[in-house]
Amino acid sequence: CDYDGPAMKTQVPGPRSQELTKQLGEIQNVGAVNFFCNYNESRGNYLVDVDGNRMLDLYTQISSIPLGYNHPALIKLMAHPDNLSTIVNRPALGILPPGNFPEKLMESLLSVAPSGMTRVQTMACGSCSNENAYKAMFIWYRNKERGHNTPSAEDLSSCMVNQGPGCPDLSILSFMGGFHGRTLGCLATTHSKAIHKVDVPSLDWPIAPFPKLKYPLEEFARENAQEEARCLEEAEDQIVKWRHKGKPVAGIVIEPIQAEGGDNHASPEFFKSLRNIARKHGCAFHVDEVQTGGGCTGKFWAHEHWGMDDPGDIVSFSKKLLTGGFYHKNELQPYRIFNTWMGDPSKNLFLTEVLNVIRTENLLEEVTRSGKALLNGLYELQTQYPGILSRARGQGTFCAIDVCDDATRTSIILKARNKGVVLGGCGDRSIRFRPALVFKEYHVHLFLNIFNDVLAQH
Amino acid sequence: CDYDGPAMKTQVPGPRSQELTKQLGEIQNVGAVNFFCNYNESRGNYLVDVDGNRMLDLYTQISSIPLGYNHPALIKLMAHPDNLSTIVNRPALGILPPGNFPEKLMESLLSVAPSGMTRVQTMACGSCSNENAYKAMFIWYRNKERGHNTPSAEDLSSCMVNQGPGCPDLSILSFMGGFHGRTLGCLATTHSKAIHKVDVPSLDWPIAPFPKLKYPLEEFARENAQEEARCLEEAEDQIVKWRHKGKPVAGIVIEPIQAEGGDNHASPEFFKSLRNIARKHGCAFHVDEVQTGGGCTGKFWAHEHWGMDDPGDIVSFSKKLLTGGFYHKNELQPYRIFNTWMGDPSKNLFLTEVLNVIRTENLLEEVTRSGKALLNGLYELQTQYPGILSRARGQGTFCAIDVCDDATRTSIILKARNKGVVLGGCGDRSIRFRPALVFKEYHVHLFLNIFNDVLAQH
Ligand code: FES
Repeated sequence: CDYDGPAMKTQVPGPRSQELTKQLGEIQNVGAVNFFCNYNESRGNYLVDVDGNRMLDLYTQISSIPLGYNHPALIKLMAHPDNLSTIVNRPALGILPPGNFPEKLMESLLSVAPSGMTRVQTMACGSCSNENAYKAMFIWYRNKERGHNTPSAEDLSSCMVNQGPGCPDLSILSFMGGFHGRTLGCLATTHSKAIHKVDVPSLDWPIAPFPKLKYPLEEFARENAQEEARCLEEAEDQIVKWRHKGKPVAGIVIEPIQAEGGDNHASPEFFKSLRNIARKHGCAFHVDEVQTGGGCTGKFWAHEHWGMDDPGDIVSFSKKLLTGGFYHKNELQPYRIFNTWMGDPSKNLFLTEVLNVIRTENLLEEVTRSGKALLNGLYELQTQYPGILSRARGQGTFCAIDVCDDATRTSIILKARNKGVVLGGCGDRSIRFRPALVFKEYHVHLFLNIFNDVLAQH
Repeated sequence: CDYDGPAMKTQVPGPRSQELTKQLGEIQNVGAVNFFCNYNESRGNYLVDVDGNRMLDLYTQISSIPLGYNHPALIKLMAHPDNLSTIVNRPALGILPPGNFPEKLMESLLSVAPSGMTRVQTMACGSCSNENAYKAMFIWYRNKERGHNTPSAEDLSSCMVNQGPGCPDLSILSFMGGFHGRTLGCLATTHSKAIHKVDVPSLDWPIAPFPKLKYPLEEFARENAQEEARCLEEAEDQIVKWRHKGKPVAGIVIEPIQAEGGDNHASPEFFKSLRNIARKHGCAFHVDEVQTGGGCTGKFWAHEHWGMDDPGDIVSFSKKLLTGGFYHKNELQPYRIFNTWMGDPSKNLFLTEVLNVIRTENLLEEVTRSGKALLNGLYELQTQYPGILSRARGQGTFCAIDVCDDATRTSIILKARNKGVVLGGCGDRSIRFRPALVFKEYHVHLFLNIFNDVLAQH
């Protein structure tokens, strides 16, 4: 179920991809299209395009493919007739769930529930997961303020015309460089790139700095600790300031590793202290694991690296988990959280099988092993090419490296692609590595050789 | 592929459903769960529950099932090996679309494009469809204001911290009673029930009244025309008022029939005049067909009943179309509209087949025929039970009737369910009818008989 290496027939995008881009351009905006794929022919770690080029994929559909392409265990699921009806009949889960739904949830999402969380609400993508997690925090906060769960008559009438007290002036604290989605609520907490936000109305919500760590970490231990302390202080200041402004912070949202924003890491101590600040000020603590969750850091959830029994009040997920959703503590009952589909049981079906494969094939251990090889390889390359590469960093295979400037980054990514490796960027000038969980040490070496060739020619 | 009538074994929810509700309650909020379903055994217009009850379904998963349950044409799709890979490998459509994507779009969504619209952007649900349609309108409006498409340096820096001019004070005009989704941007335009909105921060955006028509329409022609004129005047006033407030209206969003809000209809003239008001004031006109689209009104889009060549600038869809998304005019290029999945080609695959079936089985004509029989039946029942029923209304099978009060409505819906008919409510005291497109005259009579029994016992 995997090929033995990349095989290139044309430059990418090849003539067939270019033709299809023109065709699709008649129908929709194609500004972001890289090339067209043949998903039938793609296998494991290899993405095949419509021109017959076969590429080692370290980007995996923006980090959303858990087991590579066409994993036999997933294909096999569709041979079972019961599963056909799950795929064909999408229910309104909130009102008419299928009979096996509680059992499937136990087998899948509940079997990997974060510490301290026994409840989960499915959703359909990262954006609705976060939007609804924010709503759950707002409702929880207002219930706390009222001392009970019943909105007043004035709440009910004023909210119909978007006014307070029914629509309260509450806020979510987010971090500069964070990414939590692009619907309006999520976008108010996203601060990765201007192009994501410009021209869209937003909300006056507080934003704290996220630590900018210096690498190698051993060398800058003192500076980095100071930097983290500064960011924590600023976060606490913002909470106080927004309370005084009359827009109290109902919740804090943060990624364990800021992914779109440039793979920015912080220490477990930073997250522990932030969790305490949330508790101290009565804010809910929401860990957004949409990109970090699912095993790519070597643990199922990136927040497990913090080593906390009580890592947060809400953990949201999507991407590699195929279904979206959020776990939450008992206190944050998502009453009044509802939409037509509330997720998609067919995605849950595949997730159950993904989790089985992760367990039976010990994929978290594999990721840890491949991740070590990858990071060591990147360390060597940045020593070899100090003018081009710096700040190699990562956890599991969730790695990144900085390139001297944006133009060089783009050129490296395109050259690597023409040599049969698919990579993606993040932040201003980072390359991020997001292989599937089936990316083995063998693939790491394949990749490093090709990457080395590209750098040598630069 | 259909049963020959309802068959009831227990009260609904039966013992098995109650047991499962308890189980699911340990994992998530079950406040809205009606009963648990056996989707394997469900067929055509009949929904089967886990206790073996078989019910005629006039609610169809909140109006989201186009061809009934387990339609053989859809099951057959999964026998084709190419389609397995479409279901197993969900791509990031915006960057790496499958080779057949342009062709599939032509075959499916473009083949039913609204008049004047040649472009379509897929999304995954009604909320992201509307959220992104709003963003497209905001970006379009700002480009118009600037006179070009390039945000200034100040736009780019200010938007990173949620401030103007980068995050502009623009608004969307919506209507009281409207429903457009429950993520934060959508929710600011939703005004159907307080319980959807309360405790969630919102935006100060204008809201106009939607006509409250009196029935029968023939009898109240003059009053209804006055009511529509009043609402149009108010809408125009709001546009002017919000412009003076410094929060210009970038777009107007409206449903052709307000569905969640109580099946509120307005005349084609109302929509034509509103379209002109939008044009006059330079606002985009967004027709939300998430619930009305897909054929249930007897035309594929409800706005076709307006008889306009240029019905709007944007038409959004989801539910019965299985994939979400929005059509738009050339001028509203959705640059910078992006997320991980941008829809789901597996849903598009099923949609293509749904459209084939609609054509080959002449389902729009069937809907028109069944709809007439349904509405006539409802007229008779409201004459027979004037103390209980009033205001029967509808287009195609998209019908509704008012019940004297909320308690009676609930009791009627529950009694009908125990006699083998699934119904849903909308608004304060309406029952809405939302059968699948395969609901024939035969089913109408089956339903009317049971409904009559329920009313007779009341
Ligand atoms: S917002 Fe998540 S699927 Fe539409």
